[in-house]
Amino acid sequence: MKIQMRKPIHSTSYRVLYGDTDAAGVVYYGNYMRYFEIGRTEFMRDLVRSYKEIEDEGLVLPVIENYARYKASASYDDLLTIQTSLAEVKNVSCRFNYRIYLSNDPDKEKSRLLVKGYTVHASVNRKGKISKLPKDVLNSLKKICFDPS
Amino acid sequence: MKIQMRKPIHSTSYRVLYGDTDAAGVVYYGNYMRYFEIGRTEFMRDLVRSYKEIEDEGLVLPVIENYARYKASASYDDLLTIQTSLAEVKNVSCRFNYRIYLSNDPDKEKSRLLVKGYTVHASVNRKGKISKLPKDVLNSLKKICFDPS
Amino acid sequence: MKIQMRKPIHSTSYRVLYGDTDAAGVVYYGNYMRYFEIGRTEFMRDLVRSYKEIEDEGLVLPVIENYARYKASASYDDLLTIQTSLAEVKNVSCRFNYRIYLSNDPDKEKSRLLVKGYTVHASVNRKGKISKLPKDVLNSLKKICFDPS
Amino acid sequence: MKIQMRKPIHSTSYRVLYGDTDAAGVVYYGNYMRYFEIGRTEFMRDLVRSYKEIEDEGLVLPVIENYARYKASASYDDLLTIQTSLAEVKNVSCRFNYRIYLSNDPDKEKSRLLVKGYTVHASVNRKGKISKLPKDVLNSLKKICFDPS
Repeated sequence: MKIQMRKPIHSTSYRVLYGDTDAAGVVYYGNYMRYFEIGRTEFMRDLVRSYKEIEDEGLVLPVIENYARYKASASYDDLLTIQTSLAEVKNVSCRFNYRIYLSNDPDKEKSRLLVKGYTVHASVNRKGKISKLPKDVLNSLKKICFDPS
Repeated sequence: MKIQMRKPIHSTSYRVLYGDTDAAGVVYYGNYMRYFEIGRTEFMRDLVRSYKEIEDEGLVLPVIENYARYKASASYDDLLTIQTSLAEVKNVSCRFNYRIYLSNDPDKEKSRLLVKGYTVHASVNRKGKISKLPKDVLNSLKKICFDPS
Repeated sequence: MKIQMRKPIHSTSYRVLYGDTDAAGVVYYGNYMRYFEIGRTEFMRDLVRSYKEIEDEGLVLPVIENYARYKASASYDDLLTIQTSLAEVKNVSCRFNYRIYLSNDPDKEKSRLLVKGYTVHASVNRKGKISKLPKDVLNSLKKICFDPS
Repeated sequence: MKIQMRKPIHSTSYRVLYGDTDAAGVVYYGNYMRYFEIGRTEFMRDLVRSYKEIEDEGLVLPVIENYARYKASASYDDLLTIQTSLAEVKNVSCRFNYRIYLSNDPDKEKSRLLVKGYTVHASVNRKGKISKLPKDVLNSLKKICFDPS
């Protein structure tokens, strides 16, 4: 499965908690879904509009599909870089791609890729019906996706 | 701090997941709060009324205080016994006490005590105002607490 | 993506905790990874050998890939049925498929399908090297996969 | 229960994830134990020595007691300030106090207090035996606790 990062690529940092790890000494795989959430939340806040504001207008964007491929593990106290890019926008759904890197040593030329993945989101109103994204959000997302300049 | 178990003592089982443990090889302390939730949920379902039904009437019982004392650790795949008892009932609050035991070997005469703790809950309506517990629930809880027979 | 369930299909139950849900009133997507863990753990215990025993021999089976497709949401206190089947076995990896159903009403003719997904696992020794599964485990898994009878 | 903050008071920020909230629309109580972990981890890193380094010397500091009192709830996307102070140091244990504030609006004169709590930690070696804290860590902690200047 191809998971390509398209510009703009948004980056945010996360420090691994003890509570994220498991008895194998590494981050529990389910917790990467939380890291993906951090990535897309900060992508939206910085490049479009905060997800909370979209919710306040009565729309939620539940995950309807997620995928992750684990290349290497992260350990307690590791500093991670979560990269997020917008992969697809439709009127009632969108898809984010993610790459998570180990960035303990910021001087190292290349960080180590740990995880690649994506999430697909539907746009749903308060009654649970599929519903078009707010116009300004849709326009911003489409501009980012099709005309990143 | 004294955390005494009063009759009736309700017991339920829980199997430790990999996702509950941390890099020290034992259950992460925050996850015992989930185990306490399992204990009081099944206590209420079996002895009073399901918490979901109480919620459907417009009341929630948020935790306003919690305490835990850890005696020994639990590991992956351990089978735990969560004991729950009602320690206090007031018109707008109640308190549960808990003991969690390692019960891997049901033939052993004595299970090992791992954790003691309690949670205190307020009764709050949908608008966030402190509000009396439903009459039948209050009566059941008081009967259990003061007249366990 | 096709996620087919092959016999034997193993079933186990799970009751949704408050701590599993999120502010949208439904189970947080990342928590389904825990439910998948419950499914494969009980599949292994009942049909092959407990995962803990395999670990005690020095092998771990980390998730190297996971996928989930969400059809409908689960709510607090819902009773779920987690179905697990073995989809693929190789010398150093295996894949489980999952279906999660809402099973609140056991009398209803058909339960509602909530989630489909899979996990792929590598077999890794204590030093982190890819390593063949224990012979008896490999034989059991292959028998289940290729000769379910 | 008195939970007083003594100087030095360490502050760190945390943004509430969707995955931290529950169906009541607020942060699940068990997740505050993670926030306490963030507080003490950054306290140690900034004022003493990183907890990871202490672990690398063969000591772990498991939580043997925790307490929290919830005054008000936090919601999705809230920006929190986690305050941590050292309350007690002994040769083989220590105690941290915490206060968590809502800090959405940094211009507001006073942030809202949400949670007060503490954790007590034992110092334990790799074999699980109670063991003195490393000398330099003990000295630093005692200096902070008894001679904060």
